[in-house]
Amino acid sequence: MVKPIRKALKKVGLKPGSVVYVGEHRTEDVKIDVVDYTEREHKEKRVERIEDCFPFKESPTASWINISGIHNADIVERIGSHFGIHPLVLEDIVNTGHRPKMDEAGDYICVVLKMLYKSSGDGELKAEQVSILFGKNWVITFQETGEDVFDVVRQRIKRAVPRVRFMSSDYLAYSLVDAVVDNYFVVLEDLGERIETLEDSLAENSGPASLGTIRELKRELIFMRKAVWPLREVIGGLERTESDLVQEATGPYLRDLYEHTIQVIDTVETFRDMVSGLLDLYHTGVSNRMNEIMKVLTIIATIFIPLGFLAGVYGMNFDTSTSPFNMPELAYRYGYLLFWSLAVLIGGGLFMFFRHKKWL
Amino acid sequence: MVKPIRKALKKVGLKPGSVVYVGEHRTEDVKIDVVDYTEREHKEKRVERIEDCFPFKESPTASWINISGIHNADIVERIGSHFGIHPLVLEDIVNTGHRPKMDEAGDYICVVLKMLYKSSGDGELKAEQVSILFGKNWVITFQETGEDVFDVVRQRIKRAVPRVRFMSSDYLAYSLVDAVVDNYFVVLEDLGERIETLEDSLAENSGPASLGTIRELKRELIFMRKAVWPLREVIGGLERTESDLVQEATGPYLRDLYEHTIQVIDTVETFRDMVSGLLDLYHTGVSNRMNEIMKVLTIIATIFIPLGFLAGVYGMNFDTSTSPFNMPELAYRYGYLLFWSLAVLIGGGLFMFFRHKKWL
Amino acid sequence: MVKPIRKALKKVGLKPGSVVYVGEHRTEDVKIDVVDYTEREHKEKRVERIEDCFPFKESPTASWINISGIHNADIVERIGSHFGIHPLVLEDIVNTGHRPKMDEAGDYICVVLKMLYKSSGDGELKAEQVSILFGKNWVITFQETGEDVFDVVRQRIKRAVPRVRFMSSDYLAYSLVDAVVDNYFVVLEDLGERIETLEDSLAENSGPASLGTIRELKRELIFMRKAVWPLREVIGGLERTESDLVQEATGPYLRDLYEHTIQVIDTVETFRDMVSGLLDLYHTGVSNRMNEIMKVLTIIATIFIPLGFLAGVYGMNFDTSTSPFNMPELAYRYGYLLFWSLAVLIGGGLFMFFRHKKWL
Amino acid sequence: MVKPIRKALKKVGLKPGSVVYVGEHRTEDVKIDVVDYTEREHKEKRVERIEDCFPFKESPTASWINISGIHNADIVERIGSHFGIHPLVLEDIVNTGHRPKMDEAGDYICVVLKMLYKSSGDGELKAEQVSILFGKNWVITFQETGEDVFDVVRQRIKRAVPRVRFMSSDYLAYSLVDAVVDNYFVVLEDLGERIETLEDSLAENSGPASLGTIRELKRELIFMRKAVWPLREVIGGLERTESDLVQEATGPYLRDLYEHTIQVIDTVETFRDMVSGLLDLYHTGVSNRMNEIMKVLTIIATIFIPLGFLAGVYGMNFDTSTSPFNMPELAYRYGYLLFWSLAVLIGGGLFMFFRHKKWL
Amino acid sequence: MVKPIRKALKKVGLKPGSVVYVGEHRTEDVKIDVVDYTEREHKEKRVERIEDCFPFKESPTASWINISGIHNADIVERIGSHFGIHPLVLEDIVNTGHRPKMDEAGDYICVVLKMLYKSSGDGELKAEQVSILFGKNWVITFQETGEDVFDVVRQRIKRAVPRVRFMSSDYLAYSLVDAVVDNYFVVLEDLGERIETLEDSLAENSGPASLGTIRELKRELIFMRKAVWPLREVIGGLERTESDLVQEATGPYLRDLYEHTIQVIDTVETFRDMVSGLLDLYHTGVSNRMNEIMKVLTIIATIFIPLGFLAGVYGMNFDTSTSPFNMPELAYRYGYLLFWSLAVLIGGGLFMFFRHKKWL
Repeated sequence: MVKPIRKALKKVGLKPGSVVYVGEHRTEDVKIDVVDYTEREHKEKRVERIEDCFPFKESPTASWINISGIHNADIVERIGSHFGIHPLVLEDIVNTGHRPKMDEAGDYICVVLKMLYKSSGDGELKAEQVSILFGKNWVITFQETGEDVFDVVRQRIKRAVPRVRFMSSDYLAYSLVDAVVDNYFVVLEDLGERIETLEDSLAENSGPASLGTIRELKRELIFMRKAVWPLREVIGGLERTESDLVQEATGPYLRDLYEHTIQVIDTVETFRDMVSGLLDLYHTGVSNRMNEIMKVLTIIATIFIPLGFLAGVYGMNFDTSTSPFNMPELAYRYGYLLFWSLAVLIGGGLFMFFRHKKWL
Repeated sequence: MVKPIRKALKKVGLKPGSVVYVGEHRTEDVKIDVVDYTEREHKEKRVERIEDCFPFKESPTASWINISGIHNADIVERIGSHFGIHPLVLEDIVNTGHRPKMDEAGDYICVVLKMLYKSSGDGELKAEQVSILFGKNWVITFQETGEDVFDVVRQRIKRAVPRVRFMSSDYLAYSLVDAVVDNYFVVLEDLGERIETLEDSLAENSGPASLGTIRELKRELIFMRKAVWPLREVIGGLERTESDLVQEATGPYLRDLYEHTIQVIDTVETFRDMVSGLLDLYHTGVSNRMNEIMKVLTIIATIFIPLGFLAGVYGMNFDTSTSPFNMPELAYRYGYLLFWSLAVLIGGGLFMFFRHKKWL
Repeated sequence: MVKPIRKALKKVGLKPGSVVYVGEHRTEDVKIDVVDYTEREHKEKRVERIEDCFPFKESPTASWINISGIHNADIVERIGSHFGIHPLVLEDIVNTGHRPKMDEAGDYICVVLKMLYKSSGDGELKAEQVSILFGKNWVITFQETGEDVFDVVRQRIKRAVPRVRFMSSDYLAYSLVDAVVDNYFVVLEDLGERIETLEDSLAENSGPASLGTIRELKRELIFMRKAVWPLREVIGGLERTESDLVQEATGPYLRDLYEHTIQVIDTVETFRDMVSGLLDLYHTGVSNRMNEIMKVLTIIATIFIPLGFLAGVYGMNFDTSTSPFNMPELAYRYGYLLFWSLAVLIGGGLFMFFRHKKWL
Repeated sequence: MVKPIRKALKKVGLKPGSVVYVGEHRTEDVKIDVVDYTEREHKEKRVERIEDCFPFKESPTASWINISGIHNADIVERIGSHFGIHPLVLEDIVNTGHRPKMDEAGDYICVVLKMLYKSSGDGELKAEQVSILFGKNWVITFQETGEDVFDVVRQRIKRAVPRVRFMSSDYLAYSLVDAVVDNYFVVLEDLGERIETLEDSLAENSGPASLGTIRELKRELIFMRKAVWPLREVIGGLERTESDLVQEATGPYLRDLYEHTIQVIDTVETFRDMVSGLLDLYHTGVSNRMNEIMKVLTIIATIFIPLGFLAGVYGMNFDTSTSPFNMPELAYRYGYLLFWSLAVLIGGGLFMFFRHKKWL
Repeated sequence: MVKPIRKALKKVGLKPGSVVYVGEHRTEDVKIDVVDYTEREHKEKRVERIEDCFPFKESPTASWINISGIHNADIVERIGSHFGIHPLVLEDIVNTGHRPKMDEAGDYICVVLKMLYKSSGDGELKAEQVSILFGKNWVITFQETGEDVFDVVRQRIKRAVPRVRFMSSDYLAYSLVDAVVDNYFVVLEDLGERIETLEDSLAENSGPASLGTIRELKRELIFMRKAVWPLREVIGGLERTESDLVQEATGPYLRDLYEHTIQVIDTVETFRDMVSGLLDLYHTGVSNRMNEIMKVLTIIATIFIPLGFLAGVYGMNFDTSTSPFNMPELAYRYGYLLFWSLAVLIGGGLFMFFRHKKWL
């Protein structure tokens, strides 16, 4: 949890509007993919140089420029200046520790989000920042790596002929945000399963491993919470915006998306509650188990201490020769047997007593 | 608790507005019941094909179409398209994990709720999603199974002659929502009884079973909370709507319903508080009982350890023959009796001391 | 606590506006008292039939009709229909589990409250629902039993000659609400005293009885809270109403009443805080006492176990005849005395050590 | 804490507007001091009869009438009726349990506050209610005793020549409220010092005395909280009032005062947090100390129990004469020494083991 | 934590608007630095007398006057009166315990902040109050010591040729506030690292040292919280101000700064959550460790107490000569070996049993 927070800290001392990448060090090339389409046609291509994207700004066709890799601040700055993006917005795009936000300028809208997905490689949960800018006829997305959750959108653009709905950049942007939010549900499903599994295993056994898992769940939920709460405001902002860029027809979709976001927030909060409950459960389990152990051990000791006293008594050396009152039991024919009978009686009696009291 | 949350997750990757059922797998047939009535007449029938309902949209009679079984998305889509329902609304109707909501379109209003009831079959608590759509002259309800809480409404329509009040679709819709909310009280009564019973039993005995019951109660309350909190907004929305569909005369009924919802919320919150209290009570009980046990056991040990020492002393082998100072007690005529007197004195003294201190 | 909540549950399945009493079963007769007065005259009488009250609606004199016993729904309905009360309001009046509320109709205002008082009979705390309706020239109050807190108001009407102020029904209604709120202070004083007493006794001793008392206090505070919180809104509503029924001159009195309500709420919240503190205090007390006991017991055991070992040593049977190194102490002239000296030294030393460490 | 709350309870059953003192019983005389001044002159005198103050209402000079002792309700009522104060306001002035409030009437403003100060006599913290009323040219203050925190204001009036600023009654009233709020800082400083001291002492030792101190601090903070929270609203109300009595020039002073109030509230809340932390610290301390003790005691027992077993072994009476296998050690020349070596080895070994494990 | 709160307390009893320094006692000289620049030129100089700054008020060049050392209230008052600053504002500037605030007057705006930085000398975290006033063409900053976080701003002014942007005093003031907020990130990074380190070390070992560190972290977070929360309002106020002093072009920068502040607040709150979690972790660690120890010790005792009983049995002195039933084992050829076998069997059996039960 601490790490993502600290992401934002390295820019200290730079002048405002400095476009400086602050995430993990990366060396791979920046990949630029363009999807360009009209109502009838659909073209996908990877461009080499950022300048190749520039014409799409003015072209009448709808275009989606996806830039994978924001560690090359130079590329971000060049495309930003061509599309007329404010330097402070560009700064937020490369500042991977930024909280989700919406920025509205005259001729474009910028949405910054956290994208959560399971890496196709190692199956691990990955979090990266994705920024979606859209203007008239164009959408630009910036992401940290080449992996993303946008394949469903790509497929839908490809298959949808005619692409009337996708011709409006706000609907495309909505679809991208929707794909990100949809994936939150996948992550939540995974979390829910882990919580359920842990709850079942805690009911049986509370090992120290559970504590680690609980803390991990807690951290992931804190992270999700920070990613999701501001989203409500972001999408609400898109819904209420008076910009011409968001068409009226997109309204119901944004409202629907808004409700999904509320549901994600609700679920995150419920999970947080449940994880707190798990912690209580863990502590109850640990303490119950400990109590059980101590009880059994103490009972064993409690039974044998009186018996030990009894054995000690008949180990005493009172002089039987000087007085008939001194330990006459020692000379009884069945003295030893009597001792054992007594011992079994006392031990068994205590045992039965503890049983009766439901202490065992 | 986790399961109902995860209901909503399967739709990921579909395009917005896809009408895809996400609940439990069901195979039974969809049942379609129509109640059609005028001020004087009343007809109830089960229709076979969904198309048979279509005429009721335009007919001047009031009609209530109840569709049991939303796992057949095709039927939902067909009726939806005939009655002019937005695909996003249909999506929410079949998405059984949706949170309660109200949607207002030009010529209909849609209310999505959670219906809680005790199954008439096995007496178990069931939760299912019910969607109530109403327009001019018609009400359509979608529910997951054939069982519901609407019989009181059916009876009232049947018996009410003339059916003036029920002629307005908003009053019928209100009656249906009211029936759902009324049933929350039944569920709460059941919960309240279980809390009371548990509280009484906890005062006496805190077995591990109680913990399970507490956790179950907690979960049910979390679920109810999620079902009920958004309801306030839903009914408040109906009350404040400017749509022509909600007549002024229905206002007081909606306000009354709103107050009932507030009362349900209040009760749920009070129950949550009380269940937290139960958990504390459970822990107090467990720890008090454990303390009691450990105390008694430790007291037994504490009494016998000094006695054991005493017995050990007279088991020592100091040579009485070489010195008159070496354990002369061993040769006393009443030495052994003295030992026992001493043992009883010490043991009894400690016992009395513990009693006096109120430790026993 | 659970019981008052469950009061509201029995009406399930009835049609809205059904006037059905849901409180405890009662058989006593309904008593109807009328106080009728002009600026100069004052009449009090008990009427037999509800119809005898009807003329007071239109009479120019001020009248207060007090109906004790709402279990006879028929009477409530008859008077309600004569005075033109909405069926939903009547339903709330007899539904004794309703939360406090204010209803405003064209020609009357209805206030539903919880009245708390100590029964003059057995001195027990009683809670009942009281509904105050007032219109032009008349006030009707409905209460569950014949006992109430309104005697101060009756006295003031009687003594006040001329009764100019009481001529306005809103001032009379205010006085009745004020009497109810004033009695909350009496109940709070009683609660405060019990909290104080308990706190003092907890500082000395934490028996299981205290836990019961704490839980009882908690429950009563939850109940008061539910009775008092909505009151703020109710009285605020009276203050802000635009109805002609509430005159401007009554404004300062309502503001004053509002402040008293806030003070009651504040006090209830403070008491809740304090009761939570009592619970902590109880647990601290129990655990401190337990710790004290275990410590003393363990110290006794800790002193005698080493001594037992020592006695055990001299109870060993090493053959002193075969070797001068085998337990020569046994043959010492003062061996036994040495043993006892050693035992006292060790025991006393440990005791002093524990003392020094402040463990005893 | 309970006591100040119960102050307000005695007025139950009186009619609204009854001016009845509800504080502690007092018998001393009421003192009435008047400070009368113009821009150049300054007179201070003690008047005997309340009627002597009446001329100051209409006189063009600025006057401050300070009445020490509100237990004489008659005096309060007489001056109230001369200055035209509403009976409900007078009721609040003598009701010493009232929460801070501001009342605005046409020609005067009334501010009720809690004054906290250290008594000059015994140095104890005292709380009393002070009410500040001001109209055109006059300020009246009511306090419970003759001791107050207004000396700084008296000095400033005396020394300031010309007294232009003090000529406006709102500035004088502001100065008095400011003096009260300033004194809260003194009380907070004292509280802060006690918290700090306690925190240091808790780090070393957690005696039961600490628990008492913590509870006392908690109570004082609850009291301060109740005194300070409503103040925010009171001063905010003065700032926003549209009354002519508050001049524009006083605005910045009131804003400044408002900020001080916020700071007092902040500090009270921070102290509450810290006191909660102290309670945790206390519990941690008690439990750590207890754990430490039990650990040491258990370790002592754990070392000697195996040794006791060993001694027990060589106290057995197996017949060495019948078999060479029966306890041949007993006849060893160095058997006894071997035993002791073994005992020291085992005991020392266990000790070293516990040390190694950092249990000791 | 207590100390910074108590800073504000010494001014009690002074008249409002008294410019009296309340921080730590300082004796060093006040340093006054002026940075004066036009679009082309840039001058930095240290002035000796405060009067030397006065001309910069009216000069057309942009000027930044930085005053290090507010313990000399006289200098603050002289510059304040020359620049027309309200005495209450000056009072806040020297009152180092003030909470962050923004004051808007006709021709200047004053922002009071807490500056946090690591001292270049000893690397310790320092907190001091900094006040930034700006009017047309001039900015004055007051700080407690000569050390600050403004070097980045000084560098940027120096290097920026032409200095068009810095010519507006609002942009310069923004840059200074931004530098302060940027440094919060540095402090947070440090805190985050310490939390992370502590969390790792707590997972392994919970010494009492950790408790001290946790409490220290808690205190620092309380302090930061008090410094940062009001900042949101301050910067929001700057953003929304209608003063001509804040130009429209500065808007986006202030919005950006506002977002950073939100992020700092978010992080502080998250850290508070995490530190609470650390405390739980500490307690869990302490109690788990204690449980572990007690368990092992009790197990050792539990194994040896039955063995001790066994040894005690064969130490009994039943008279084997009088009866063949009296302890015949003592005369067995392998009796002693049998005893040891039994002892090992019992001990080992218990050990295996505990292992099996996972108690060891």
